[in-house]
Amino acid sequence: MHIPKSSDVAKSYERIKPFIHHTPVFKSTDLNNKVGTNVWLKCENFQKVGAFKFRGACNAVLPLISKLANNGVATHSSGNHGQAIAKAAQIKGIPAYIVMPENAPRIKIEAVKNYGAEIVFCEPTQLAREKTLEKVIQQTKAYFVHPYNDPNVVLGQSSAAWEFLHEIPELELIITPIGGGGLLSGSILAAEAFHALNNLPLCKVTAAEPEQANDAYRSMQSGSIQSLTDKQIMSPTIADGLRTTIGNIPFHIMRRTHTEIICVSEESIVKAMRYIWERFNMIIEASCAVPIAALLENKITPTFKNIGVIITGGNVDLDHLPWNSPQ
Amino acid sequence: MHIPKSSDVAKSYERIKPFIHHTPVFKSTDLNNKVGTNVWLKCENFQKVGAFKFRGACNAVLPLISKLANNGVATHSSGNHGQAIAKAAQIKGIPAYIVMPENAPRIKIEAVKNYGAEIVFCEPTQLAREKTLEKVIQQTKAYFVHPYNDPNVVLGQSSAAWEFLHEIPELELIITPIGGGGLLSGSILAAEAFHALNNLPLCKVTAAEPEQANDAYRSMQSGSIQSLTDKQIMSPTIADGLRTTIGNIPFHIMRRTHTEIICVSEESIVKAMRYIWERFNMIIEASCAVPIAALLENKITPTFKNIGVIITGGNVDLDHLPWNSPQ
Repeated sequence: MHIPKSSDVAKSYERIKPFIHHTPVFKSTDLNNKVGTNVWLKCENFQKVGAFKFRGACNAVLPLISKLANNGVATHSSGNHGQAIAKAAQIKGIPAYIVMPENAPRIKIEAVKNYGAEIVFCEPTQLAREKTLEKVIQQTKAYFVHPYNDPNVVLGQSSAAWEFLHEIPELELIITPIGGGGLLSGSILAAEAFHALNNLPLCKVTAAEPEQANDAYRSMQSGSIQSLTDKQIMSPTIADGLRTTIGNIPFHIMRRTHTEIICVSEESIVKAMRYIWERFNMIIEASCAVPIAALLENKITPTFKNIGVIITGGNVDLDHLPWNSPQ
Repeated sequence: MHIPKSSDVAKSYERIKPFIHHTPVFKSTDLNNKVGTNVWLKCENFQKVGAFKFRGACNAVLPLISKLANNGVATHSSGNHGQAIAKAAQIKGIPAYIVMPENAPRIKIEAVKNYGAEIVFCEPTQLAREKTLEKVIQQTKAYFVHPYNDPNVVLGQSSAAWEFLHEIPELELIITPIGGGGLLSGSILAAEAFHALNNLPLCKVTAAEPEQANDAYRSMQSGSIQSLTDKQIMSPTIADGLRTTIGNIPFHIMRRTHTEIICVSEESIVKAMRYIWERFNMIIEASCAVPIAALLENKITPTFKNIGVIITGGNVDLDHLPWNSPQ
């Protein structure tokens, strides 16, 4: 297992910088008043492909040597990572094969197609994804880019917090959602790298996840990676990007830094999502509403004066909004 | 009639600059490909109060001398201008009285209340608005800030195009929606001011409006200000911000510069609105989708290499989205 290092954060950023958007940071008086402290949102929903995942995909795909890249790249994804790999492969000029669950949102399927990738559908389970991907790789000899358990992906994701800290150096806490752990562990590395470079206190990094997919919380408690329970699989969280199991690379970094995991209810996620839509006029996925829910529910220690939240993505099926359909 | 001058654009901007957001400019490869040219969006939906109207309100309210300001300010508005005046008055520390049609979107009513203004409801007609406002002003002696037919409001609105041109100096055309004409005429002044200051060709400014509220088009054709037809009042456009009649100050500037008005269908407005939501992950009102509709329907001369669109606002009632209710 190759664990990425904070000393590689700056180098990765310089590599992908020409290809990614430097996304804006937003704040609002109303949110600050509600939380009782300054809250800054790093808007990765305005990143290319509409999610931070493009950062990791670029950092994994672009530096591939011809021998590995020639047969293309492959991955499995419920959406954002798939789009990200498809677009990164398009930039590099190599084929991309994306395994997607057949119930993936229409808009994500269309976007992957638009970037010229080949889609292979599978049943919506982790096992079916992995089996189907295995077959695709056997047939095509494509290079597999894991959505989060890949050192270069983790380093690519670190660039969001890296930009964030350069823009708001007074951040004392960054909160990210946690699915596989790529963004979270990347953000931890970015905070360490920023701390090493500047004479500023280390910014803490905390993760938020749905109670209904609290595998990261249980993993940190038990010290070994846990999966969703049968009940959590049968009654899945609305935060569809956070249903995945943590990768062992992110988990290693989380364990090393004793990362705190905050769990929030489904109701508070929908409420926080709608709040951001209405107050910030921007579209965010349910998954990115999870840290906002933690803030609005006062689940964060109130001593932080400047809190940053990474808004992870905005690819939403507008025909199925949580406040227009029965919960 | 006091007509604002392009030589006052820079001064107005410096006055309101500390109070407004410098909003981001977005673009997307997909939109560029669809239109066949570079399209830049100036995102005033991320302005304070969620709309460009805050610029005009600041420039009208903040410099008021005590004698005029002491009794507060008053206006009528279906929403965004009301919020803007309420917030500007809050900053200045004076009362605000906002006359609103009783069918105004809930979210706009709530926002006006949150800024501490007093709301007076009226029937949803231009006449009822004006009569009710008259009464309010008689009772309170408040200073009336017209939503668009006010030199300082027009100059305040000019700051959006002013920032836009400084960020993208290669813009050859700016398209705005037209309701009362404040943003359009302000943008014309900004383009003239920028042209006077820099050795660059004059950026053209064009307006787009719904066919179903084509009063600006008919006004320019006939040379005198026209109202909506009875049919257009009975079957109102979805672009609720554009149902107003042009003010004579904006009309004077439009006539002087022979402003072109492009008309688009209701169907194309809804399509363009949804397109921006899905591709840019941002919430825009139907009114701001009107210039995008003109672009997507290829109603713009294809010789422009760099086109700017001012995205005017993002205050939408999420319970009543046009693609979730029968058209």
